[in-house]
This record gives sequence, C-alpha cells and structure tokens, in this order.
Amino acid sequence: MTALPQPTILGKSLVRDLSALLGAGSVSAEPADLWASSRDCWPRTLLWTKAGRAPHPPDAVAWPRDVAQVQAIVRYAAEQGVALIPFGAGSGVCGGTVAVRGGIALDLKRLAGAPRVDLAARTVDAGAGLNGQRLEELLNAAGGTLGHFPSSIYCSTVGGWLAARSAGQLSSRYGKIEDMVLSVQAVDGTGALLQTIDGPSGGPDLTQLIVGSEGTLAVITGARLRIWPRPTGRWLRGVIFKSTARGLHALHQLMRSGLRPAVLRLYDPLDTLMAGKSGGAALHVPIPGALKALFGKGQREALRLALRAPMLMNRLVNALPGSSLLILGFEGEGEAGVEDARAEGEEALRLCREAGGDDQGSAPGERWLANRYKVSYRQSPLFSAGAFVDTMEVATTWDRLERLYLAVRRAVEGHAFVLAHFSHAYLEGCSIYFTFVGPGGQSTDESSAALGPLARPAQRAEAEREARAAESRYEACWRAALSAVCDEGATLSHHHGVGLAKQVFLPREHGEGMRQLRALKKAFDPKGILNPGKLLL
Amino acid sequence: MTALPQPTILGKSLVRDLSALLGAGSVSAEPADLWASSRDCWPRTLLWTKAGRAPHPPDAVAWPRDVAQVQAIVRYAAEQGVALIPFGAGSGVCGGTVAVRGGIALDLKRLAGAPRVDLAARTVDAGAGLNGQRLEELLNAAGGTLGHFPSSIYCSTVGGWLAARSAGQLSSRYGKIEDMVLSVQAVDGTGALLQTIDGPSGGPDLTQLIVGSEGTLAVITGARLRIWPRPTGRWLRGVIFKSTARGLHALHQLMRSGLRPAVLRLYDPLDTLMAGKSGGAALHVPIPGALKALFGKGQREALRLALRAPMLMNRLVNALPGSSLLILGFEGEGEAGVEDARAEGEEALRLCREAGGDDQGSAPGERWLANRYKVSYRQSPLFSAGAFVDTMEVATTWDRLERLYLAVRRAVEGHAFVLAHFSHAYLEGCSIYFTFVGPGGQSTDESSAALGPLARPAQRAEAEREARAAESRYEACWRAALSAVCDEGATLSHHHGVGLAKQVFLPREHGEGMRQLRALKKAFDPKGILNPGKLLL
Repeated sequence: MTALPQPTILGKSLVRDLSALLGAGSVSAEPADLWASSRDCWPRTLLWTKAGRAPHPPDAVAWPRDVAQVQAIVRYAAEQGVALIPFGAGSGVCGGTVAVRGGIALDLKRLAGAPRVDLAARTVDAGAGLNGQRLEELLNAAGGTLGHFPSSIYCSTVGGWLAARSAGQLSSRYGKIEDMVLSVQAVDGTGALLQTIDGPSGGPDLTQLIVGSEGTLAVITGARLRIWPRPTGRWLRGVIFKSTARGLHALHQLMRSGLRPAVLRLYDPLDTLMAGKSGGAALHVPIPGALKALFGKGQREALRLALRAPMLMNRLVNALPGSSLLILGFEGEGEAGVEDARAEGEEALRLCREAGGDDQGSAPGERWLANRYKVSYRQSPLFSAGAFVDTMEVATTWDRLERLYLAVRRAVEGHAFVLAHFSHAYLEGCSIYFTFVGPGGQSTDESSAALGPLARPAQRAEAEREARAAESRYEACWRAALSAVCDEGATLSHHHGVGLAKQVFLPREHGEGMRQLRALKKAFDPKGILNPGKLLL
Repeated sequence: MTALPQPTILGKSLVRDLSALLGAGSVSAEPADLWASSRDCWPRTLLWTKAGRAPHPPDAVAWPRDVAQVQAIVRYAAEQGVALIPFGAGSGVCGGTVAVRGGIALDLKRLAGAPRVDLAARTVDAGAGLNGQRLEELLNAAGGTLGHFPSSIYCSTVGGWLAARSAGQLSSRYGKIEDMVLSVQAVDGTGALLQTIDGPSGGPDLTQLIVGSEGTLAVITGARLRIWPRPTGRWLRGVIFKSTARGLHALHQLMRSGLRPAVLRLYDPLDTLMAGKSGGAALHVPIPGALKALFGKGQREALRLALRAPMLMNRLVNALPGSSLLILGFEGEGEAGVEDARAEGEEALRLCREAGGDDQGSAPGERWLANRYKVSYRQSPLFSAGAFVDTMEVATTWDRLERLYLAVRRAVEGHAFVLAHFSHAYLEGCSIYFTFVGPGGQSTDESSAALGPLARPAQRAEAEREARAAESRYEACWRAALSAVCDEGATLSHHHGVGLAKQVFLPREHGEGMRQLRALKKAFDPKGILNPGKLLL
C-alpha cells in the first residue's frame, strides 16, 4: 500500500497563488494528484510503488489552459524560485518527468485544442498536450497520417515526443520526431515565447536545440509537424535468417538500397524463439508467458527459473540455434498504393534472399501489426511476480552494431535475462532495443503487505531491506549496461530520452559538450527552474 | 587602385606573439595578406575594391597547422581580447568572414590533411580547411561521392560549408550540408574542443547548433560527413512549362512523388528566355552577353539600356510570354545505375507532362551540366562595366513560394533588373535564387583612375561621391528585397549564410530567438572574440 504524498506548506501557497493566476480548477495539491505526478512509466518508479514509496512528489500540479497561462506560471515560478516540471501523459520510461526538488508539475494536457491540419501543405499544427492516438485519428479522418507510432501512442503527447526525441515503429520510413518537426513553439525559463521558423534557419537551428532538451531549456507548447497522405497499401512479411549477423547485414543492405521500408525489425534468437514457441500468436507475448512456452513449465515457475540464474539462462540461450526473424513492411500512397508497396516489398525480399533470408510469408508481419502496442502494457504483472523488467534503446553505426549487441549482453548476463531486437534503422546505423528481466525482489503480494500500515515493525524492516536490495540490483544492471554502451561509443538513448535513468552517463557521450549544455541551461533558464536535476542540469 | 591596409601596432605584436606560439611562417601582417583576408566574394566588397578601399582589414592572418594550434590561438585571443575571424577559402557572398573589429583572420586552409574515407561505412572524416573539389576528387578516387556541389566547389572548404549551411546543386537528392553532417569537431571561444556524437544525440543536438553559426560560437576544425557510392548512371532533361506557376506545381508534385531527383531547377521566364536567345549554349551565360542576345545590341549598350530603367525593363519582361524551363536530372548507383536513373526520369517526365510540361530532350540538361560552375566566376566583369550584380537565395514553403517570388520582384523592380530560378527543392518548400543587376556607378575604368594616387583632388572627390552613391543604391536594393522576404515570412538565407549582408533582418526571422542566440554566444564564447559583429552577436 502506498503512502500518498501529503500537502506541503509550499504546496498550499502554490495552490493559493496559482489559483489567483489561472482561475479555479487549474491547480491542486491533493495527495492523489501529487502521487500521480510523482512517477512516470520508469520501471524504477514501479519499484518505488512496490516499496510503498513516492520519494519525489511535486508540491502542486498545475493545468494551464493556453500558452499565456504557461508563460504566467513560468514567470511566477522564476520569481519564486520554484521548480517547474513539464508533464505530458507520463509515459516516459526514464523518469524524465519525476520531480527531484519538489515544485510544480506542469501538466500540459489541456494544450490540446483541435490541431490545424493542412493536407495540401502536408503540415499539422498541434498543441503540446495533444494525445498521440487522438492526433493520428484526427489526421486519418482528414486523409493524412503523421507516420509516428511509438508503442506509447495511446498514452503520450506531442510535447513529450519532442522533449524526449521519440521514435515510432515506422521510423525507417517516416523518420523520428526530430525529422518530422518543422518548427516549435516554446516558453523559456524567463517566460518568453519562442517561435522557430518553419524552414531552413538563418544561423543556428533553434528548433533542434529545443527538441530533446527534456524540459530543461524551455516548455514546448506546440509544434508544426510534417504529415503524409494516409497510405492506401501495405505489404508485410517475415523473413528468417540463420544468424543475427546475417540479418543485420540484410537490414543494412535494405537501408542502403534506396527502398523505403516502413517496418524493419530484426529479433535476436531468443526473441525469435519466444515468438515461435508461443505458437506464433504474437511476438510481443507477455514475458512470463513466453518463458512458460520456452521451458514448458508453469509461468511463475519458469520465471523463477530464469531469474534465479540469469547468467546460466543467457549462456543457454547463446548455445541455442541462432535464427533471427525479420519483420519487413512497406507502405504505398495514392491509387497505386497497393502495387507500390508490393513492388518495393518484392524487391526487398529479393535483397533478403541474397543475404540468406528465408521467406516466412505474411503471417509473422500481420501478427506483429496486430500486437504492436501490447508490449508496453504488459510489464507491470512481471513486477507483481517479483521480477523487474526494463528496456534500453541505444544506437550506433552499422559497423559497431553487432559488437555493441554482444558487449551489452556480456555486461548484463550476470544481472538479468536479456533479449533484444534491432529496429528504427537509419542510413548510418540502427537502434538496439534490449529487454532485461531480472530478479526484482520477493513476491510482491507479501512484501506489499509487509510494507502496509498494518505490518509489524520487524516484518516491515525486513521488507524495506528487501526493497532496497531490489533497487540496488536493478541499478547494478543498468550501470553495467550503460557502461558497455559508452565503452562502445554508442548513443546512450535513441528515443526514450535520458531522464533520471541515464543522466550520469551523459558526460561520456558529450565530453566537453556538457559545459555547453550547462551554458545553454543558464541562457534559456537563468533561474534554473525548468525540470532541475535532469540532463545533469 | 587599391590602397593596401598598413600593418598596425596590434598587428606587429600579434605577429610576434603568434610566431612564438605557432612557429615561423604561421602568421603575417603583410599588407597583401591583410588585404586578401579583408574581403570575400560579397559583391559589396567588390564595390569597396572598385572604390579603392579595404575598410575592414584584420590586423594579422594566422594559419594554424592542427587543432592544437587552433586551441592555442583561441586561448591567446581570449586572453588578449582580440577578435578571431575563421576563414576558409573566402568564397562567401555575404561578408561573413569580413573582420569588422580588426583582429586575427584565422585561415584554416592548413587543416586539410588526407581525409579518412570509409566507403563501407559511407563516411568521410575531413578537416575544416579541405577544399571542396579536392575532397570530391579524393572521394571519387575511392569510388564515392559527397553529393555536395555548391557552385563555389572549387574555392570553398568543408568548414565554410558547415558554418554557412551550404547547399549543393544536387541537394534535392543528397540534402544540404546540415543533412550530410554526422558529427563536428570544433573549438569554442574558451579553447575547449567539442566533439559531437555521430548518431542521434542524448539531449539537445549540439551538432546542429554549431552548423550555421558562422564562426560566432566555435571554430569548426573538422567533421564526419555521409558519403555515397559514386553514381554510375545519369539522366538529364529539359521540360518547358507555359508559366512559372505551372512549373512550380510540377516541382512540388515531383518532390512529393517519392522520386529522388538530383537536379531540379526551374528558371523564371527571363532566365529561360536568356538561355533560349543566347543560342541555347548555356543557361549561365554571362549576363551582359545574355542582355545582348536579348536586345540584339552591343553588350555594353544592352547593359546600359537595362540599367538605366530597371523598372521599365522588369515590366517589359513581365509582359513577355512566360515560359519556364525546368532542368531535371536523376542519378543511379551500382550495376543498374543507368537503368534506375532512366526509370525514375521517365516517371518524373510523366508527372511533368501531367502538369502541362513539354519535353525538350536531354540537350538543355547536358548544357546545364557542362556550365554549372561558370556563373560564379562571371560577375566581376559586370562591375567593371559599371553595374552591380548580386544574388539572394531565400526559401519558403510551397504555398507561399509564388507569392514570395512576386513580392521580391515588385520590391526590387525600381532598383535592379531581376531574374530568378527555383532550386534546392525539399519536401515542404523550395529556395528561390534571385539575381539582381543594378546600376553600380559610372564606368569603372575612369572612376578607378580617379581614385588612384595620381588623380586630382576635385576629380577624386567626385569619384568618391559616386562610389558612395553606388554603395547606397546597392544597399537600397537589398533592403527592399529582404523587407519583402521577411514580410512574406520566408527564411532570409537558404544556403549563403547571413553574414554582414543580411544580419540586420535576423530579428525578423527569429524574434525572441535572438535573445537565445545572444545567450548562446555568451555561453560558447564568453569573451566575445569569435567573429564578433556577425549574426548581430
């Protein structure tokens, strides 16, 4: 049972002042609101929840209705020296919106008026708080698509995408959010409104400076994004390669061929095997189910087996036959959409065959499509089963990709059971999406009770010790993984952002650039009120 | 005759100190060196030369041999508070490398060691001082191409391209330099070396912050750029449209079709007519020759006619039948390169026909190719003939493009004779490349003599008055043009950079962003030594 955060003195004065500024119903210091804003989907916050803690609540939550209200709040916060944490839909998985110094959670979901869709110009102007799926549906109704399909699409916003450099499942065709954004509107730490130009800029590119800044430089309030006609044709296929290396070679060739694959996901042998053993019903089966399928035991028993000795498990997997499944998809527009998608697909298939690939027909692709958003909603039960599960998406150039994959597996093998797929390929490289399943702690049902208000002191102390141990195991796994990533010279975040999860490794990526980041921070946010304690700022 | 700049006291001490720092032969305060570094290809500097002036010489020129020497010079300059103006090959046309507060011209041409070409990874690591044509030849020898062909390629450098957001003639296929750059190496105003990551960045994109900063934030010392296999096939064509509007429609359709045109240049009616009347020998005929062809008179007489009454001339041109010529080209790679280029070309031609285009065969395209670098070297004679000629490349979205074209023509019609082409098309819009030919002053042969050391005072005073009048006519033309650009919400520089020519209009493009630019300046260059007085910094 979670102890909800209690209202603070600061919280009460924030409610009073911000109510006067914004009107009634625009601010709250109610425990449930503070709790909801004290976490995102960072698995570590689930561990906190398990341990009955909300260690970093904000003092208040504010819901501005328009840009002018955002400016008013920022000016107020700058004057008072109160932290402001921009918050979209809370789907981040790195703790980027978790307050670390209290302050105001600036929930932007009300900046979600009807987007201005201009299909002729192929642009949409959208508010930062607009929900991703809602935006896509509105675009579809107008005959368009953004082409942006993060697995969080049902619970993420335009502003969050931009703040954390989101990538959708079709990014190889449509690009990442930073490729789609034509201009942004943002309020900096002094309350000034920035509007960047929707074309090549004279001087440095201020749009690309704000994208990825995770709320530390400015509060994104809206953006103009590139849209496309809604595709009329789709072609999907599964191709099996004898090894991950062969599959990667095919991926690389495909990206260089001039073809424009929409879906391009290569599963490593374990991920591939799970898909096969689970009856081919879905690639993204819930992990306990997959383990059950793999080892032919009860779900919980299979999981316990996997968690007890992750090193052994990982080595066992290394010894398995190494088939890798590629999901390959193309889209086409207009009258010839079906034919175009098919023609590009057939050409891609030819390249895959040349690289040793074995055509599996369309079924694996269709299965992927049907289940593509499910994975993100199926991690929580694992925590209840006493495990932790987390994902890490990193990226590097083609020549370093397989080495990076092996290095991370090696680094993590003693901490967690590892599976991975390669996706979001781009011209020079590709992202690797690792999933770690590790021992999180004892079964939660008991430990939650032990942490509840009715627990005896000795029982509670033991449970707390276990919760801390679980957190430190989780942290050791991450540290090992990110060290390996940095050692290989790879990017430590491809599309989840940096947040609290990865920031201590940021200096290994940017070197002297960290000094520039700090200087930028001072420039955009002289009072240091915007999402303090993130990006090491 | 030009009065060469004389060595200053500061210059002498710079030579002494920098010689000690860098070794002999690395620094000079010789008048000829100062003069050469006091100008670039900004037409206004030609007017200065005509008027026998070098109003903004640096005090010294330094040629660092490596990055460590660049760092040493920057640290020295920061300590002494001396301005540093990064200088590549001096091909800029906006005065971006013209010193305005004296100081050290930092000539980077010695940072031009053998580039590291990695065709397998499709990257090249090049020093900032490497000449463009030299780089392309080295890449060609290795089987690659950068795909970057600015008309300045013979007299520009990698560092200059990045500093000013260069675009090459095939940018619709290969992108602008900011699309090709994977990472940069740069020395900031404190002497610290920045090395950005060659992949998607965690946090804000520092690469895109340095690109386009025109030497005001950091001295670019090298970059990793994307390369391509050298094309094996090429397909070129000319297509005539009945009006510019129809041609623009075709351009837009082509960019949206998914085809990847390499060359895509639409000439406005006057530019088209000149090409036709001059016997079709070249699109980029020297302008006096074109006027002669157009009006059937002697070159100089034709030019005088055009310059005496630009308004009348522009209106006359408006009344001419409005054919617009499109040069269209495709490239293909590998074994099927010839066939791929042809197939894409034929498909493009089909789209052009649908848009009302009339196929002119391959000759116009081949002529364009043969003459594509000539235009930039043919402006100087016009100045000698008593005219000024200048170019302005702006950009905007497709829906605003024709209005922008008409607005600039209207704004400039009283000042200069205007021709234009549309090129560097991208998904959302296109650049317009205007050429202005206006009355620069009396015939230069006489006025130069009048400004020489042997001239009588009255004669000299008259000549100086005339030179000043010419400069102010030139300035009035630019002001009118850029005002119109900003009124239409267009980008004021697509690929020439901002420099001294355009900076006063920068606040109209960036608004509140100017405050951010100033803050960035303070962050990267706390002593304000890097190219001071540019980007209004």
